[in-house]
Amino acid sequence: MTDCIQHKSETSEDASKTCIFCKIINKDIPSSKVYEDDDFIAILDISPANKGHTLIIPKKHSETLLDTEDEILKEMLPIAKKIAKAICQTTGCPGYNILINNYKVAGQLVPHIHLHIIPRTNKDDFQLEWTHKEYEENEMQKLADEIKSSL
Amino acid sequence: MTDCIQHKSETSEDASKTCIFCKIINKDIPSSKVYEDDDFIAILDISPANKGHTLIIPKKHSETLLDTEDEILKEMLPIAKKIAKAICQTTGCPGYNILINNYKVAGQLVPHIHLHIIPRTNKDDFQLEWTHKEYEENEMQKLADEIKSSL
Repeated sequence: MTDCIQHKSETSEDASKTCIFCKIINKDIPSSKVYEDDDFIAILDISPANKGHTLIIPKKHSETLLDTEDEILKEMLPIAKKIAKAICQTTGCPGYNILINNYKVAGQLVPHIHLHIIPRTNKDDFQLEWTHKEYEENEMQKLADEIKSSL
Repeated sequence: MTDCIQHKSETSEDASKTCIFCKIINKDIPSSKVYEDDDFIAILDISPANKGHTLIIPKKHSETLLDTEDEILKEMLPIAKKIAKAICQTTGCPGYNILINNYKVAGQLVPHIHLHIIPRTNKDDFQLEWTHKEYEENEMQKLADEIKSSL
């Protein structure tokens, strides 16, 4: 059992008092909104990687992918598609990243699930890099089989 | 009209001859599969950021988020949730990133949409950084309004 499975999320009721995104959703904190429906808001990130950087946030509080209902998750990428198209049209960006950071170790700063749409340019300073690791002989297939059997 | 809107994708038929992911889906190239259903496969990335780095790939060829059908997009995050949980259980990672790079400028290497699940550790060399840009007075709300009106 790992940290990311063990973690217990706050309920929506607890979170509305302390979670910055719940406060934005409840209009206790102002935001620059680009989209809203019954289940989601999308707002501009106040510290953007590039101008137009947008966050899609489910209104119902959950912390990460693992504790978010499938019915909510199903809507996130179709909404991201619509908004990404509008960001491209507005900013003229030639590409963008879709990103959901899960847990602090992955860069999640607010413990309320949010999907980043980050417009990119050829000259930006956005760094998304890693060294490519190598699997030893048979290690890759063995790991794939282990993951498959945990599904 | 921007590059990311103008771009015309290959059809599934064209792509099956040249696209490396279509070849993997068609079993012309081997892979370490962790999941398969009628519409998706998930495989281990052969050059992983960390061991367990997995790609979820729709079987029907499309290039980016913008030319992928909503019916396909709706299934991607629920599948990612299941697989991320299995990766956490198997590797013991305390967090992970969900990432879809759209177009070369955003780091998309294979022009067939794919969702990365990247398990993270406290000691890895995965870099995901940017300097925070600043909006001038009223610029943020003006941009939000422009994006909203393009939706």
